[in-house]
Amino acid sequence: MPYELYYWPSNQGRGEFVRLALEDAAAEYIDIGRLSEAEGGGVPAILKLMNAPEIKTPPFAPPFLKAGELIVGQTANILMFIGAHHQLAPADEAGRLWTHQLQLSVTDFVKEIHDTHHPLGAAFYYEEQKAEAKRYSENFLKLRLPKSLTYFETVLTRNGGRHLVGSAITYIDLSLFQLVAGLRYAFPRAMARIEPSVPRLIALHDAVQVRPRIAAYLASPRRMEFDEKGVFRRYPELDE
Amino acid sequence: MPYELYYWPSNQGRGEFVRLALEDAAAEYIDIGRLSEAEGGGVPAILKLMNAPEIKTPPFAPPFLKAGELIVGQTANILMFIGAHHQLAPADEAGRLWTHQLQLSVTDFVKEIHDTHHPLGAAFYYEEQKAEAKRYSENFLKLRLPKSLTYFETVLTRNGGRHLVGSAITYIDLSLFQLVAGLRYAFPRAMARIEPSVPRLIALHDAVQVRPRIAAYLASPRRMEFDEKGVFRRYPELDE
Repeated sequence: MPYELYYWPSNQGRGEFVRLALEDAAAEYIDIGRLSEAEGGGVPAILKLMNAPEIKTPPFAPPFLKAGELIVGQTANILMFIGAHHQLAPADEAGRLWTHQLQLSVTDFVKEIHDTHHPLGAAFYYEEQKAEAKRYSENFLKLRLPKSLTYFETVLTRNGGRHLVGSAITYIDLSLFQLVAGLRYAFPRAMARIEPSVPRLIALHDAVQVRPRIAAYLASPRRMEFDEKGVFRRYPELDE
Repeated sequence: MPYELYYWPSNQGRGEFVRLALEDAAAEYIDIGRLSEAEGGGVPAILKLMNAPEIKTPPFAPPFLKAGELIVGQTANILMFIGAHHQLAPADEAGRLWTHQLQLSVTDFVKEIHDTHHPLGAAFYYEEQKAEAKRYSENFLKLRLPKSLTYFETVLTRNGGRHLVGSAITYIDLSLFQLVAGLRYAFPRAMARIEPSVPRLIALHDAVQVRPRIAAYLASPRRMEFDEKGVFRRYPELDE
């Protein structure tokens, strides 16, 4: 039975980290949110499952993954599940916890990236919080972005330079690819400045990008484009 | 060998979720950040471990827990580790993932609570972002706070009303106690309005509070007071 991925169909969002792992694992999955409503998909299918009173483990928000009867929510938690079942994470406890810890630092970083355009939250449009976004982004580009990228570069370096964890690909490598790709889209000027200081991270991005299944996925219609509805948004006024 | 907990000594912060689990488990631990520098503790001890070049798994930020040679970072990840080793979480995969998923929703919620007073981030003092904090908090109290508390009430209800997961205490129950206690401190007016609609959550808070080890901890000097340096801050102007 294929997995069912539930995520808003309007943009890559946090669901993309899950898609990359499923694609690299060659796991069969149905992207429910991107099916038409006539096919039983779309936003109504997501809301229906979230609000079904008979479900004892209702997720707070998408993305969530249905694996038979099991419903797993929270991006990093889904990746831990996929990692365990598709050899995309170490099997031992220490390695499993460390990979997940790195993913949770990605989660925190993704929230910061989101907040560059929405520091006051999703309740207000970007246009209603542009001045605040600018203040937030200045500090983000000056301090937080270099700090996070340098952190992952350090982890890569201490692990030999090719992978974040162990000697093979794990889901955290795939997530770092997405981070670099998204940051290049959103902040091309800032990334041009920072990239020379994190060469191993860039090399990891490049290596993931040409993995056969990832390359096939990126060239397929299953991969949505970056745009100004997702986490990574290109607002040139914030990238200065 | 006792665990070593590394967290900033200035306030409860995210470390408190870890302390509550360690205390309820009667696990031996040393709260390194709260030791004096002469005893090898304090902020220098935290920074020393974070910056030690020989550590292959450096945490991005406190809290982190040292268990022998293992270093586990990220609050929810630490709790998953403690849950597995001290019977504070189900042992089966589905139960383990579900408990952790709930904890990650707590992590997201704690970040929102933090952002009520610091929407533009920790780079600016509260006094430098009071207007933004007010805008953020209005939406938080009107929509986000009820949504999150109602979510946990629903999970409790569907699980029989006494525990979030299974039929015994888990770390997520302890974290929900801390959430309610902190929210009561920070937003007494808003909580007075909302509490009647989440009776099971309040009953859970009350039940955790009188667990013998938790009660002993709360009465001890190991428990710091809530104050205006932590996640939960009482700024009356935000609680309207």
